[in-house]
Amino acid sequence: MLLGGLECGGTKMVCAIGDENGRIIKKERIISLDPETTVPQIIDFFRTNSIIALGVASFGPVDPDVKSPTYGYITSTTKVQWRNYDLIGNLRRALNVPCGFDTDVNGAVLGEVTYGCMKGLSNALYMTVGTGIGIGVYANGSLLHGMLHPEGGHVMVRRHPEDTFPGNCIYHKDCLEGLASGSALMERFGCNPAEVSMSDPVWKYESYYLAQALVDYILTLSPEKIVLGGGVMSRAELFPMIRRDVVHLLNDYIDTEKIKKIDEYITPSSLEGDQAVMGCMKLAYDAACSS
Amino acid sequence: MLLGGLECGGTKMVCAIGDENGRIIKKERIISLDPETTVPQIIDFFRTNSIIALGVASFGPVDPDVKSPTYGYITSTTKVQWRNYDLIGNLRRALNVPCGFDTDVNGAVLGEVTYGCMKGLSNALYMTVGTGIGIGVYANGSLLHGMLHPEGGHVMVRRHPEDTFPGNCIYHKDCLEGLASGSALMERFGCNPAEVSMSDPVWKYESYYLAQALVDYILTLSPEKIVLGGGVMSRAELFPMIRRDVVHLLNDYIDTEKIKKIDEYITPSSLEGDQAVMGCMKLAYDAACSS
Repeated sequence: MLLGGLECGGTKMVCAIGDENGRIIKKERIISLDPETTVPQIIDFFRTNSIIALGVASFGPVDPDVKSPTYGYITSTTKVQWRNYDLIGNLRRALNVPCGFDTDVNGAVLGEVTYGCMKGLSNALYMTVGTGIGIGVYANGSLLHGMLHPEGGHVMVRRHPEDTFPGNCIYHKDCLEGLASGSALMERFGCNPAEVSMSDPVWKYESYYLAQALVDYILTLSPEKIVLGGGVMSRAELFPMIRRDVVHLLNDYIDTEKIKKIDEYITPSSLEGDQAVMGCMKLAYDAACSS
Repeated sequence: MLLGGLECGGTKMVCAIGDENGRIIKKERIISLDPETTVPQIIDFFRTNSIIALGVASFGPVDPDVKSPTYGYITSTTKVQWRNYDLIGNLRRALNVPCGFDTDVNGAVLGEVTYGCMKGLSNALYMTVGTGIGIGVYANGSLLHGMLHPEGGHVMVRRHPEDTFPGNCIYHKDCLEGLASGSALMERFGCNPAEVSMSDPVWKYESYYLAQALVDYILTLSPEKIVLGGGVMSRAELFPMIRRDVVHLLNDYIDTEKIKKIDEYITPSSLEGDQAVMGCMKLAYDAACSS
């Protein structure tokens, strides 16, 4: 009983075949160009493997509301060629299998909650700090959508008094994403952030901004655990800095056992980059079960 | 089949008798002093009315985790006499009825979702701006707890460049509550905020801070509707200011029909101050059903 998983990113599409235990049997990367070029390649991959259902986790904003006429669309994205694209409609028509659909970050939190280090939790948060910043939220035992879906990468943060970078978010200039995303770091440094020494003061700002956002999420969503992923977070030195800043900013106001064990509360992913595609396996499994 | 509802506030306890349709038959206010004085009066009120269950919504932080040894306690509150007080244990032992328990703001959101203007929604937010600031969250069809419960009154906001007030939160100084609560306004004005003209620039800061917090909540929780209550929000002129600031800060990033109808999206309570005590009726009803 094979399941298909598709993680749609701005630069690459990860196509995988696996099962409901999160095992991945086969995986292929396809470069993200425009839908006309890329979607047929995705369809080819899944056609050559007889899957019974497909789970898709995509960059957004997307429409995850099954009752909406534009369910399954990528909507107001900055990636112009994918704007208002009926992703799920096209895949379902071509592959003729039930499809599950959510944001890439909701896919990642679902992967962690189903198979990873947040297994069994009812309230969990995944934040990716990559080219952009996004959050996936599991609340009261399901993925959170609400009016749309969480877009926590764009929360407003208080600027570090020494930070003069104007921010590069096209909507908000110096929101979290505008100050702390991988693309903001690229612009700040003029080179790959991975090459910049941790003694550069920008990393101090980075930790301060990410910690502010985590404090906001803790105070609004009250997650039982937080996983941080994405390219920027592969800089492991950031973890202790962020944890220290979170504790400092909370200042004992949230007095729980989990916050006291901050090293276990805020951690890297346990699924080595496969969290979203494994979440897709769960989306596919649920789609198969409910069809 | 009578139900009891108890809304515990820092200055008063509202005791009510009603039914599962949210009808309130009898209501009495008791001044909040210390537990030794106040709790016996509460017990007397409910004893003289034969209720089958009690719902309690209390100022916090509280422990709402039924699996915890301190379930039903008021925990690390600044109201020293109530700190670590076993509220539900004492009420249950005295009244011998099933009890439901949550925060005052979760009670309010439950009231609105069950009987008020958010009826039927699965994702809803209630913010009170009173002496303190708090949020109640309904997510995926139930009240949100998670690690603890939402404490969104303490999110960090960006200071208005003209605002020189240092903030009065004893934990964070100039978090949202420290800058924008009723007690912060009292300290800013040196008099009852209700007496201060809307032309005072402080109201502009107030709207800016509350709008920032709402934007944070929209980007993390994605509520389908937001109700604002509490003493400060009885200043009706604040609503259009806050709505305008929210739209301005979001800057079209969240492009939904609901945000386009911002007057319907952010509204006053529909239950005229009874939202929390009506939420208690639902807590009591659920406690009766599950016992």
